[in-house]
Amino acid sequence: MSSAIGTEDLKIVGSRPLRPDGVDKVTGRARYGADVSLPGQLIGKVLRSPHPHARILAIDTSLALALPGVKAVVTRDDFPDMPDEYAAAGELTINYRDVTRNMMAREKVLYDGHPVAAVAAISESVAREALKLIKVDYQVLPHVIDVREAMRPDAPLLHEAQYTEGVSPKPDKPSNIAKRLEFSRGDVAAGFARAEVIVEREFNTQPVHQGYIEPQACLASTTEDGQVELWTSTQGHFMFRAQCAKLLQMEVSRIRVTPTEIGGGFGGKNNIYNEPLAIVLSRKSHRPVKMVMSREEVFRATGPTSGGNVKVRLGATKDGRITAAFAELNFQAGAYPGSSVAPASMCAFTRYDLDNVRVIGHDVTCNRPKVAAYRAPGAPIAAFAVESAIDELAGKLAIDPIEFRLKNAAREGTQTYYGPKLGTIGYVETLEAARAHPHYRAPLGPDQGRGVATGFWFNIGGETSATVNINEDGTVALMHGTLDVAGGSRAAMAMMVAEELGIPFEQVRPIVGDTAVLGFNFITAGSRGTFAGGMACVTAARQAIDRLRTRVAAIREVPVEAVIWKDGQARPAEGSAIRFEPMSLAQIARLAGKTGGTIAGHAEINAQGAGPGFGTHIVDVAVDRETGAIRVLRYTAVQDVGRAIHPAYVEGQLQGGVAQGIGWALNEEYVYGADGVLQNPGFLDYRIPVASDLPYIDTVLVEVPNPNHPYGVRGCGEVPIIAPLAAIANAVSHALGIRLCDLPLSPPRVARAIADRPA
Amino acid sequence: MSSAIGTEDLKIVGSRPLRPDGVDKVTGRARYGADVSLPGQLIGKVLRSPHPHARILAIDTSLALALPGVKAVVTRDDFPDMPDEYAAAGELTINYRDVTRNMMAREKVLYDGHPVAAVAAISESVAREALKLIKVDYQVLPHVIDVREAMRPDAPLLHEAQYTEGVSPKPDKPSNIAKRLEFSRGDVAAGFARAEVIVEREFNTQPVHQGYIEPQACLASTTEDGQVELWTSTQGHFMFRAQCAKLLQMEVSRIRVTPTEIGGGFGGKNNIYNEPLAIVLSRKSHRPVKMVMSREEVFRATGPTSGGNVKVRLGATKDGRITAAFAELNFQAGAYPGSSVAPASMCAFTRYDLDNVRVIGHDVTCNRPKVAAYRAPGAPIAAFAVESAIDELAGKLAIDPIEFRLKNAAREGTQTYYGPKLGTIGYVETLEAARAHPHYRAPLGPDQGRGVATGFWFNIGGETSATVNINEDGTVALMHGTLDVAGGSRAAMAMMVAEELGIPFEQVRPIVGDTAVLGFNFITAGSRGTFAGGMACVTAARQAIDRLRTRVAAIREVPVEAVIWKDGQARPAEGSAIRFEPMSLAQIARLAGKTGGTIAGHAEINAQGAGPGFGTHIVDVAVDRETGAIRVLRYTAVQDVGRAIHPAYVEGQLQGGVAQGIGWALNEEYVYGADGVLQNPGFLDYRIPVASDLPYIDTVLVEVPNPNHPYGVRGCGEVPIIAPLAAIANAVSHALGIRLCDLPLSPPRVARAIADRPA
Repeated sequence: MSSAIGTEDLKIVGSRPLRPDGVDKVTGRARYGADVSLPGQLIGKVLRSPHPHARILAIDTSLALALPGVKAVVTRDDFPDMPDEYAAAGELTINYRDVTRNMMAREKVLYDGHPVAAVAAISESVAREALKLIKVDYQVLPHVIDVREAMRPDAPLLHEAQYTEGVSPKPDKPSNIAKRLEFSRGDVAAGFARAEVIVEREFNTQPVHQGYIEPQACLASTTEDGQVELWTSTQGHFMFRAQCAKLLQMEVSRIRVTPTEIGGGFGGKNNIYNEPLAIVLSRKSHRPVKMVMSREEVFRATGPTSGGNVKVRLGATKDGRITAAFAELNFQAGAYPGSSVAPASMCAFTRYDLDNVRVIGHDVTCNRPKVAAYRAPGAPIAAFAVESAIDELAGKLAIDPIEFRLKNAAREGTQTYYGPKLGTIGYVETLEAARAHPHYRAPLGPDQGRGVATGFWFNIGGETSATVNINEDGTVALMHGTLDVAGGSRAAMAMMVAEELGIPFEQVRPIVGDTAVLGFNFITAGSRGTFAGGMACVTAARQAIDRLRTRVAAIREVPVEAVIWKDGQARPAEGSAIRFEPMSLAQIARLAGKTGGTIAGHAEINAQGAGPGFGTHIVDVAVDRETGAIRVLRYTAVQDVGRAIHPAYVEGQLQGGVAQGIGWALNEEYVYGADGVLQNPGFLDYRIPVASDLPYIDTVLVEVPNPNHPYGVRGCGEVPIIAPLAAIANAVSHALGIRLCDLPLSPPRVARAIADRPA
Repeated sequence: MSSAIGTEDLKIVGSRPLRPDGVDKVTGRARYGADVSLPGQLIGKVLRSPHPHARILAIDTSLALALPGVKAVVTRDDFPDMPDEYAAAGELTINYRDVTRNMMAREKVLYDGHPVAAVAAISESVAREALKLIKVDYQVLPHVIDVREAMRPDAPLLHEAQYTEGVSPKPDKPSNIAKRLEFSRGDVAAGFARAEVIVEREFNTQPVHQGYIEPQACLASTTEDGQVELWTSTQGHFMFRAQCAKLLQMEVSRIRVTPTEIGGGFGGKNNIYNEPLAIVLSRKSHRPVKMVMSREEVFRATGPTSGGNVKVRLGATKDGRITAAFAELNFQAGAYPGSSVAPASMCAFTRYDLDNVRVIGHDVTCNRPKVAAYRAPGAPIAAFAVESAIDELAGKLAIDPIEFRLKNAAREGTQTYYGPKLGTIGYVETLEAARAHPHYRAPLGPDQGRGVATGFWFNIGGETSATVNINEDGTVALMHGTLDVAGGSRAAMAMMVAEELGIPFEQVRPIVGDTAVLGFNFITAGSRGTFAGGMACVTAARQAIDRLRTRVAAIREVPVEAVIWKDGQARPAEGSAIRFEPMSLAQIARLAGKTGGTIAGHAEINAQGAGPGFGTHIVDVAVDRETGAIRVLRYTAVQDVGRAIHPAYVEGQLQGGVAQGIGWALNEEYVYGADGVLQNPGFLDYRIPVASDLPYIDTVLVEVPNPNHPYGVRGCGEVPIIAPLAAIANAVSHALGIRLCDLPLSPPRVARAIADRPA
């Protein structure tokens, strides 16, 4: 159960009604990507590279095309090449030259699983048979998997024309280091010189997959006049539309994208994979084409997060004030540039109020699938390193780790090293709530350890649209473009609209609008859903309320200023001399046709003012010294969520993020053979936590309202995955008395650390 | 080919681009009602009464329920009874007591084909098998099919508690005459007394079916929490939602209706049939349920139009001025009250400027399927009678029939006998254009005749919503709630929006919004589609333009008043001192995210000011005196359409209406046996015209703009079916020298008339 700080007298916001999508999901009625079908549809399958790095000398599809039942084949020749530049895509900039190559290899394949061709056939078995008939002539090249190896000057080079960006003068030799970035503030050297205690460590994390339950699935129908309908499991249907239009050089209006229910995304469904292939296969075959990835394809060819190598140096005075902080973050980008090293660099130290900071980041290509965002992209990797070092530093100073963080905590007005000053935030409140929690004082047994770590995430806003349609009986159809990536945001949207309109939650039916029916909506990412979507829904509801007031003013023949909206009624303003009979929403709605037409409210906004989120986690672990197995005994996640619209679903966000963080910390990793081929592309060998691995994850919701949101909402979905890696590593380190710096803390690695321990 | 009168200098309106739905329809991609499928769906089938009139003593469904594969059965017990009162449903009032009984018989069955039970099973064959296992215990009652017989005091009575409405004092005996209505103006007796020539005749028409290609089809999914998704082939998804909600006592917000592509409706898809059954079968079976009618079911149990018995009396002076007009219209309502006798009564004489008029109408129940609207409901029946009499009167007066109509024609300011004065209308213009047409002077051969007749229809407006979303590349997603009932209204909507925005037609992608994504939209009926839908789309486009201007004013730092919209650009007002660089739609759209969010325009209106439509038709026929077969040789339809947004589709409306009118005039009829069972429920025995039956139907579009519409649109879809019945009957009468007063003019009937001709 959660406790809440700062609640107000609201009727619906803060309560815990059942989510509108819940029943469909538990009864199997919800329509996920693979559940959409059209008459006459074909099945599309992708031929993937068996090599981590090879030049494509030739592709012969003639035998596949001749196979009865095969209706179309596509290769690199079916897609226009794109210029090597960053182009706007909604609020992102994207290098479409890379995107089109990742979707379908052109000159080279760059990882095991890289698409080289795709077929559409009357059945999956025929499609699979056809794939075997495609002949690809490869010239195999040496490959590199590890980020540190990839950074070496003599490493096999993925991109012959890639020169490290952000280095001056421009390097004369190409490199796998796509980009170097640096953030700094103050005088780090002077800061370290002033330090009385210094901790310096190097940390490594492995790539982990977002692990969504539902593999990528889409269905495309391209008609003879070039109109495309696309159903797909996505975190951003408008962004998919934008990317498909760009990659296929089509007008945006020619593509309608309907988002299906989504079985998890966590950042992994921000990017197109099969969608353009399905569209072109459909165009060539004159039939709808469905493409559903297997789990193996998901692992081999969709983005995991980066693995990272992070060097951290921290200095402090004996009284516990950090004087300097340095980090170097080397992040695997996979086959094409674009790791999350930039946000990771910005997050690395932003929990602290520091005068002297320097962070260097490297974005490094290597022969792995191109990474994708994963819940607070990059931040858990940076926090693992920094929060481990903070823990060690606190230990060296013999200061309680929460106390140490409080001494250095970022607060309102703290100047970040990457740009803005922090606004109203609740970091200190989470630390204090954690310190006050019974968990923090509970006794530990032998071979047990307790760890603490904290997390920070920016949170974002962005382009968002919503419509509130008042039905003729006064119930409400709410349409929003914020995809509900399984977190219950439909419930939150409906709750805010019900609160505004003063009607029961159950009378507001939220639905997610497709790209034809609403204005642009940015991806559901960056923890923007409930913040930006909610702001749009509230804006739309308030426009509807203004119109309701106007209708009542006309019906009652009073000035509109004399009509206020309260408790689901248009009524006289309190204390006003102008009196009239109040009208309920249902009464006004019944007359809407006769008083001018249906009443609706609309919002197309670019939501600004997202409030950063902070969390403090406490975890207890037990280590089996014989096997190296770690058991998580107790977990408490404290987080400032601004305002929990639906506390149960906010708690669920915290619990889910922690569960994923535990998997990242303890077990998950990509295992490549010497041949550069992924050896564990399945949930049997890639071990994500199951229910029996996890304790009940306790949550404490701190509510320091975001002043920029009508209900004070801060994003809450990403912060909870940031702290677990470090919290668990700190707990294990305390249990063993050994500082563990490499993830995952899997039994063999922990057992080895115990065996290698200096006497 | 059409000629047009009154065109203006417009860029897109008035041109003939390809319709956006055309390719999908000709390639089979368009998704009609039966094309939608969901995983796990069941097939629903209806058990129908084999009797025209019987009391239901008992229904035993136990054997059917026990059949493996049967998942649910519904009967009258599964639906709440409804009060015997008229309740608002959008802009209509509906007697839900009757609607629920027509959907599923309760106390009695009232026609051959009346539903008594329905099953949902894993396949159609299992469902059909199950129907055979349902035992219904009937007490068969005497029945009545013909309208005149049904009006007799001793006729078998359908509704024991039905007392004729509109009669004072209230009758003491129930009757099949559900309602009597009367419209009158002036002194009819005095008018007839002044008349120098009088014509008096009695006419009969048979019920004819709307004959849409696509049988009714729907798919419903009801979840455990009572949420309904419904896909259906409908002319009014919002009205279907309203009716299902009412019949099933649900909140409107719980039902989402997605209209499928529609294979014709013509008024026949204004009404729910299987939809509530599918919803409840789905609720009981926990599975989606699809129900597709067979053609036989369509004929037996969906509404044809009324058959009518019409007495007409007309008087005129020798110089050709009509002094009095009387009509009595007796319309079959089918099993439940609600024929179109009211609009028929209002249309009967409204082509003429008359001082003395009286019209009496009777709405008569009989043991036939409840009638539904059919294109200008009732007006063709009334016009058949009145325009036949007008023709005979003109003949008696030896005045050219067009000249005679011109002498008496309704004009702007003419006072109708049912209420309003007529506004700007183009009736005289259609008569003059017809008179001037070469067809009217072309020679006729032996056994050939030429007929003229005219038609009037009110046209309506009503509640309508639309949204214009400007995509990020400046192309446009247009969403409207006006269902495109095969007439090309999507094209017309997109053309008006493209005209307003000043961009190519192809850049506007129109889609029809479902009930969750738009405000209320009334049924596509009453020829309101392009009028009201267009008005909403133009209103939405103009709101978007205002927002585009506002953005440019902000970007260019000029007052918004200084920014006008012209040719797809925001530019300085001509002659204004404030100059700035114009911005195109695409340029503004590209910056929209950064300047406040997506740009959209919305409209929720109740469209007022529909302009009445008038048409004048000329037809030549040849009669085969031996067989009685009639061949339509040449047909010219002249109509005031206000403004033809897309002339080809307007011409198509005229041609389609005429084709249906020809079928009505010559061949179509319901044939009942003495047992009250329909004998021709299929297109083999119910003969609609095929291409080889028809000449090329020439059209002349007269454009007298409707001053109440931004582009001058008048509805045009219904007028063209009104005149053909009379025009053909007049032509045949002239060819034979016999006045033929009973439709259809099928070979046996014509042959009999020839044989019975007085020597």
